[in-house]
Parts: sequence; C-alpha cells; structure tokens
Amino acid sequence: MSEPGFTCVTDIRVRYAETDGMRVVYHGNYLTYFEQARTEMLRAMGLPYAAIEAMGIFVVVVEAHVHYRRPAAYDDRLQVRASVRERPTNRIRIEYAVTRGDDPAVLVDGYTMHAFLDARTGRPVRPPKEFETIMQSFFP
Amino acid sequence: MSEPGFTCVTDIRVRYAETDGMRVVYHGNYLTYFEQARTEMLRAMGLPYAAIEAMGIFVVVVEAHVHYRRPAAYDDRLQVRASVRERPTNRIRIEYAVTRGDDPAVLVDGYTMHAFLDARTGRPVRPPKEFETIMQSFFP
Amino acid sequence: MSEPGFTCVTDIRVRYAETDGMRVVYHGNYLTYFEQARTEMLRAMGLPYAAIEAMGIFVVVVEAHVHYRRPAAYDDRLQVRASVRERPTNRIRIEYAVTRGDDPAVLVDGYTMHAFLDARTGRPVRPPKEFETIMQSFFP
Amino acid sequence: MSEPGFTCVTDIRVRYAETDGMRVVYHGNYLTYFEQARTEMLRAMGLPYAAIEAMGIFVVVVEAHVHYRRPAAYDDRLQVRASVRERPTNRIRIEYAVTRGDDPAVLVDGYTMHAFLDARTGRPVRPPKEFETIMQSFFP
Repeated sequence: MSEPGFTCVTDIRVRYAETDGMRVVYHGNYLTYFEQARTEMLRAMGLPYAAIEAMGIFVVVVEAHVHYRRPAAYDDRLQVRASVRERPTNRIRIEYAVTRGDDPAVLVDGYTMHAFLDARTGRPVRPPKEFETIMQSFFP
Repeated sequence: MSEPGFTCVTDIRVRYAETDGMRVVYHGNYLTYFEQARTEMLRAMGLPYAAIEAMGIFVVVVEAHVHYRRPAAYDDRLQVRASVRERPTNRIRIEYAVTRGDDPAVLVDGYTMHAFLDARTGRPVRPPKEFETIMQSFFP
Repeated sequence: MSEPGFTCVTDIRVRYAETDGMRVVYHGNYLTYFEQARTEMLRAMGLPYAAIEAMGIFVVVVEAHVHYRRPAAYDDRLQVRASVRERPTNRIRIEYAVTRGDDPAVLVDGYTMHAFLDARTGRPVRPPKEFETIMQSFFP
Repeated sequence: MSEPGFTCVTDIRVRYAETDGMRVVYHGNYLTYFEQARTEMLRAMGLPYAAIEAMGIFVVVVEAHVHYRRPAAYDDRLQVRASVRERPTNRIRIEYAVTRGDDPAVLVDGYTMHAFLDARTGRPVRPPKEFETIMQSFFP
C-alpha cells in the first residue's frame, strides 16, 4: 500500500474464559485482544515491546476507545488488525479492527493512545532512540 | 444535587489478579470495574440488571471510552462513581470516574454506551417499560 | 507412542494482561491456558468442544489441580501439553504440562476432571455417543 | 472455636465479566476469589499482604486444588471462607469454602499452598519474623 504507516494482522481464537453469560466475548476482553495485536505489530516492526521495557521504559495506555458492532463467540477465529497511521510524537496512536474468517464485516474497532514512562520513576519521557528510528522508517 | 440524573458510588478493592507486570491495574480491567459500578447503580435505581435479563432483554455495550490519568495499585481501595446524566432513549450513556480514598484526583474516567437487545433473537428492542418508568422518575 | 491415550501440544504466547505485579503469569490464568489446550486437544481428536455443546451437552470442570514449579513471564512462548491417559467413563480426566521453548523443564503441571451435563437442565448425563466412539478409538 | 487456626469470611458479588457462556462463574475465577479471601484473611490476622511485599518478600502459590460442586451465577452474593488450620513452616496452606447467602451447601472448596520468595532474587526464603510471630499467636 502507498499510504504511510504500518499494519499487522494477528489471529486470535476466542477462549471460553473470554465469553460471558450472553455467550459472546465480554466487551472488556477486546482491550486484551488489542494488546496482543499491538505486541505482534511492534515485533513485526522490529522492536518487540519486551525490548522497550529492557531499556527501562514502559509504554502505557493513556486512552482507549472501543466500538462494538457485532458479537464474537467461543472458538471463533478472529483477525485483529493493528495499525499505526500517524507518525508518533511523545505519544503513539494505534488503531484496531476485528474481523472473523472470510467475512469483511468489522465486529469491533477502536484505538489506543500511549505515552512513554521511565519505568523507575513513572515520569513521562521521550520514546527511546531505537523507537524513533524505526518509526521514521515507516513515516519518511 | 439539583442537576438531573443519578449517581452511585461503589467501593472496589484492587485484587492481585487485576494488576499487571507494571505493578498497576491492567487498563482493560477498568471496564470490569465500570461494569460492577453500573450493576450497583441500576440496583440503587430500583432495577437490578438481573431483573432486566429476566424480562428477556440484554443490555449490551456498544461503545466504551476510557481515559487513564493515574495508576492504581494492588489493594488500593477505589471508589467508582457511575452516573446517568442524560435521559436514555433506545440507548443509555453511563459515565464513570475512579478515585482513591480521600484524594479527589480522578485516576480514570470514561463512559459506556448501551443498547437493548432481545435475548433470544439478538435484535435491537426498546427498553422494557419498567426501565422507562424508572428513568422518567430521574429525568422528570 | 505405544502407550494408550492422546496428547496434543498448543503454543500460547503470554499476554501482558495475564501477568501480575510479580511480573509473572498470574497463577489463576494457567486454568485458562489448560482450557485452550483442552479445546485444541478435542479438536485434534475429531470432536471440537463447540460440536459437543451443539448436541446440548456442557462438559464442566468438577476438579482442578495445579502445581506451580517455575514462573513464566510476559511474551514467553509456552507449550501446553494436554493428554487423556485413562479411558473416560462418565468423567474424563485431562493432564497438562507447560514448558517453554526448547527447555524440557516443566513450569506448571496439573489435571482437570470433567463431567457431562444436560445444557438445559444442568443434570449429569452420559457423554454423547460421538464422544464415546472417538474415545474408544484411542483406548481400544 | 477451640480448634486452632484462623478463619475469615469475605463477601464477593459475582461480576458479569466473571461468568462464561454457561452463564455460571468460569472455573478459573475461583482462584481469584480465593486470592481476595486470602488477602482479607491476612489483613484480619494483622499482617496485610502488601506489608509482606514491602519487606521484600513475595508469597507465591506453589499448588492449588479446587473442587467444583455447584455453580454460581451473575450477581450471586458469595461468602468465601479462608482458613489456616496448620501451623505454617516454610510453607503455608490455606483452605477455602464458598457458600451463597443463607444456604450452607458448599459450592466450591479447595486449598492453596504457598512459599516465600526473596522478591529480588526469586529464591526461597524463610517467612519474615513478623509473619512467624503472628502465626505463633494462632498456633500456641
């Protein structure tokens, strides 16, 4: 694609534990699915999240938005698409869309906004150099 | 207060299970805290959620927004304030704010938007009469 | 292998949500990992759990035992081995062992014992015919 | 009671998030209920778990056993009884029984076994002095 940014799709199989009494995925669990997709996206970009923490930096969620359009059920095979579309500053915004199998209909979408904290002090910091270098390669 | 609507405060003690490797509450778990506060709010309004389901109606989350301002830790005693401030239509919007102990600083806030579904068919329906009657008493 | 029974290994990547303030997987989450491994084992045996529920039968956990030997951390790639070693009667016993990467050391092991319930009445029933036929093929 | 040891009862209201597609509490969540009851038991004994961690010691679960006898549903008000019945050594064993409302029937019971670890090194240590002193007062 010619549009800037980066997208990564992660397959997630719905666990029974993740459903609720309505026999669908509990709404709060999509934030965990987003987290898993974000982890795989960062790994695919060349900077695994564990490596960022090893530099003494936490990437924390400062805002989350989720739009629930259709339910997912136990054992469904979901695709969770995570994308960075805007060049990150001291914040990074990641967008998500969940689909199922061959059906292009979006079940759930949303975004999360993240800040960088010093893991010891808990204070905001700039993203690490390695992070900025990698992001520049996707937003030239 | 003279402003219309209804507010209910629920105490929640943070469990170890709800923290993550940053030693703070995992961001996704606030949606569960919001759910518990919403349950207590509906009970305090006179219409427990279990009674709504007994009428064959599911109240589902169609949208959720969370703003994370400060972290909470294991064993913290949180107050989760849930409020209805707008007269519900076929949708109901509930707002939340989380504080800790005597400190008025808001740790986390956000809202959820809900729709009513027929529990058998999964199709949108109007809220049950009992629900409308109770809401009218708070939005005269 | 010449010993009777069936074994299936499922890869699970540890999510941040599944860790706790000790920066390791929260002990309760291994029961969810066991569930995922059990689901994949039943699928590999030719009888997906969703198909059992479609026959109107719930397979419920009546007993669980977990032995925690070594911790697992965020982003670890775990192998969860699930095995049936005894011919099921009205109960089925499944054993589990969790390892990481190439290291043969068992991090966590345990078992779950299951009963069959009529999904409508909640009363114990015999396993469905399809289940017995499949189990007989593994315990001739 | 004249038998040695200590017992503490904690009220827990079942959240929707904690139920699964069978419309009952997901079996893995009882380990979280046990954790909450254990936290309240330690607090009632005069040694909150957070204070133990502040001494640089983690109390980890090395074994867990759960027996599921009857299901619990959304919004049920459970009592989780946690007891220490044997004088702890380098290990501590805690027993649990879950009941609902006025009904004495036990829904779920089990135990957890715990060890003490140095929070920095992860190596086994003796329990802290304060812990031993408090336990001696209950097992004279």
